[in-house]
Amino acid sequence: MAKKSPLAPAGFPDIPAIPGVRVAGASCGLKYKGRKDVFLAALDKGTQVAGVFTKSKTAAAPVHWCKRQAGKGRARALIVNAGNANAFTGQAGEKSVQRTVDKVASVLDVPKSQVFVASTGVIGETLPDGRITKSLAGLKKSLTPDNWTDAASAIMTTDTFPKGAWRRVTIGDTEVTIGGIAKGSGMIAPDMATMLSFIFTDAKIPADVLQTITARAADRSFNAITVDGDTSTSDTVLVFATGAAKHAKISKPGDAKLRAFRTALEEVMTDLAHQIVRDGEGATKFVTVNVTGAKSARAAKKIGLAIANSPLVKTAIAGEDANWGRIVMAVGKSGEEADRDLLTISIGGVAVADRGMVVKGYDEAPVARHMKGDEIDIEVDLKIGRGAATVWTCDLTHGYISINADYRS
Amino acid sequence: MAKKSPLAPAGFPDIPAIPGVRVAGASCGLKYKGRKDVFLAALDKGTQVAGVFTKSKTAAAPVHWCKRQAGKGRARALIVNAGNANAFTGQAGEKSVQRTVDKVASVLDVPKSQVFVASTGVIGETLPDGRITKSLAGLKKSLTPDNWTDAASAIMTTDTFPKGAWRRVTIGDTEVTIGGIAKGSGMIAPDMATMLSFIFTDAKIPADVLQTITARAADRSFNAITVDGDTSTSDTVLVFATGAAKHAKISKPGDAKLRAFRTALEEVMTDLAHQIVRDGEGATKFVTVNVTGAKSARAAKKIGLAIANSPLVKTAIAGEDANWGRIVMAVGKSGEEADRDLLTISIGGVAVADRGMVVKGYDEAPVARHMKGDEIDIEVDLKIGRGAATVWTCDLTHGYISINADYRS
Repeated sequence: MAKKSPLAPAGFPDIPAIPGVRVAGASCGLKYKGRKDVFLAALDKGTQVAGVFTKSKTAAAPVHWCKRQAGKGRARALIVNAGNANAFTGQAGEKSVQRTVDKVASVLDVPKSQVFVASTGVIGETLPDGRITKSLAGLKKSLTPDNWTDAASAIMTTDTFPKGAWRRVTIGDTEVTIGGIAKGSGMIAPDMATMLSFIFTDAKIPADVLQTITARAADRSFNAITVDGDTSTSDTVLVFATGAAKHAKISKPGDAKLRAFRTALEEVMTDLAHQIVRDGEGATKFVTVNVTGAKSARAAKKIGLAIANSPLVKTAIAGEDANWGRIVMAVGKSGEEADRDLLTISIGGVAVADRGMVVKGYDEAPVARHMKGDEIDIEVDLKIGRGAATVWTCDLTHGYISINADYRS
Repeated sequence: MAKKSPLAPAGFPDIPAIPGVRVAGASCGLKYKGRKDVFLAALDKGTQVAGVFTKSKTAAAPVHWCKRQAGKGRARALIVNAGNANAFTGQAGEKSVQRTVDKVASVLDVPKSQVFVASTGVIGETLPDGRITKSLAGLKKSLTPDNWTDAASAIMTTDTFPKGAWRRVTIGDTEVTIGGIAKGSGMIAPDMATMLSFIFTDAKIPADVLQTITARAADRSFNAITVDGDTSTSDTVLVFATGAAKHAKISKPGDAKLRAFRTALEEVMTDLAHQIVRDGEGATKFVTVNVTGAKSARAAKKIGLAIANSPLVKTAIAGEDANWGRIVMAVGKSGEEADRDLLTISIGGVAVADRGMVVKGYDEAPVARHMKGDEIDIEVDLKIGRGAATVWTCDLTHGYISINADYRS
């Protein structure tokens, strides 16, 4: 495993037990020796599920299965393996998913249609699913309510640290917990990436309501990060709500009682999304791009992503160069409406360019100091509308090239 | 200047004199010491012009000027400088273009509206146009019909070699010559890049016809290459037809007499476009991506560009790894229609994946040998339609990071 990212958080958070959820991690020898590579979650009866998936036209077999089952809204189990993505494996891949589902359903005594599957790792190699199913009896025995470190570690591939986040909020007067794990470090782009995230809560929320708030929160978190603009065939976010908490009935996404929950869900997702960026392959800087004054929120996000995905912007940041000309270039190539002679750019809170020109008497020193830090803030105000968006990314370094030119993940 | 690209051609071609065109290069001390950095072309009366420009929403001042004037179809002069792009310089930039145009018009005694201007280099710094205009008298004196090496050298920025190409064809029974130069090595993406190309011919072709065939040829050459997916604010392709050749009258782009000329124009553009890719920042491999069987030609090109722009595909090529899984990923992220279970991929002419799976008994040895070469061929057949396109790119290496993280161009 590679050296831990310099942007990694201090440690893994103390995610508490979530009523209705038990988890376990194990090593089934799929690819990584002496590392956990399979994760099982058992969910109590009545658990509702919502999902957001890769938009890839060449999605992997497990994604096809999960999309179909998530539409039905019920879940009792989740099985995830790292090391092999079971992607581009044709009909063999579909059969492999089916065998895995059958075995999990039988071992946990739950309906097949309520077993969810995700795989991450190398593409195009047949998944030796027998190794996963052989480990199921052991996994079942080791299910506990709070072994989240094992869970988060078991889904890692090129990740350099396990990723987790949690929040506790109330719905009405009842306390509920939201806890989640995620993996991903390369092939990260919005609309998912080789990114898996599984979030659990004991809140009692019907699947259709859960789907609406999940999709919205994902749009402003997981779908607002990018490492390299590449999109994986396996990206999956699943949110499971066990319903163990005894709060008032929720029937609409807009329910006022859900306000704190919606915020907390977005916070958990944003926290996990940031951790993925902080583990971006070769990353040495965490970059926040704020776009305001665009024609619409959609335009603002597209401009933000054009900046965040630009190899020239990302290499300039790696070189600690406040090269705002490259930011202008990226705004221009986004294809969204912009007026060169209104555009304003700040870096680290210092105005650099104003109304299409470098600011009068521009003092590069404070900006140069900001560029030497490991948290870089870029603000672009287009001054033509009220659309705003925030996007997060990392720099593009020799480390990214080394990882991806020398290693078949 | 950086070491010459390992993919550079053996030498600069012997572009002959083109009746009606005189060229000169000089050093005006804009940025590069001891290097030519300004290029002047004088064109005989009656010269027709066509242009293709960056689609950037933050286009530079010279692009605004050229777009406006190219629409009128007449040209008598072209002035180009390297070292400063006169981009994101606000109204000062527009005034700078105006002063340059005025001075060229007066020195060469031609109408202002027929003077074309292009600038390439650093963005956001005021262009010291006085240095350019001061050099005009000397440039005028040194105008010759065939000093193409000086011309091509004077427009270079991070280029490691001057780029030129030419063809001789007949229109009816009359021989005509097409000769062109180009610059560009980073910030290269379709719909132009920091890419300038100027092509000259003695053919007698009306501006509207010239515009149609120029746009078509550019679409299949300059707009089918990518180095890093970034688009410059200054990209300009101009084709000048002096009309010195005495051939039959041409009035339609589809004229059968123009067939050989159309082909030759596309060949010159493709040759120049390939040279730009071969000079891609840090490039060690020249990559051809052929997409067939797509829903449409447009879809095929979008899929080709998704592959050619994928950092994961490009780093795999740099690492000489035939990682076809990343090609599948890129096809999927293009957003164009694809059927995972029909998709076929060949590398170096060897089938790697067929109908959504690795080919039976796949022997990696010949593919591994191909990956060690410096010309990489990738073929993707989607098998769902008849759309086809070819796209060219280079690999993504430590060299690209070093050039762009350490150097403000």
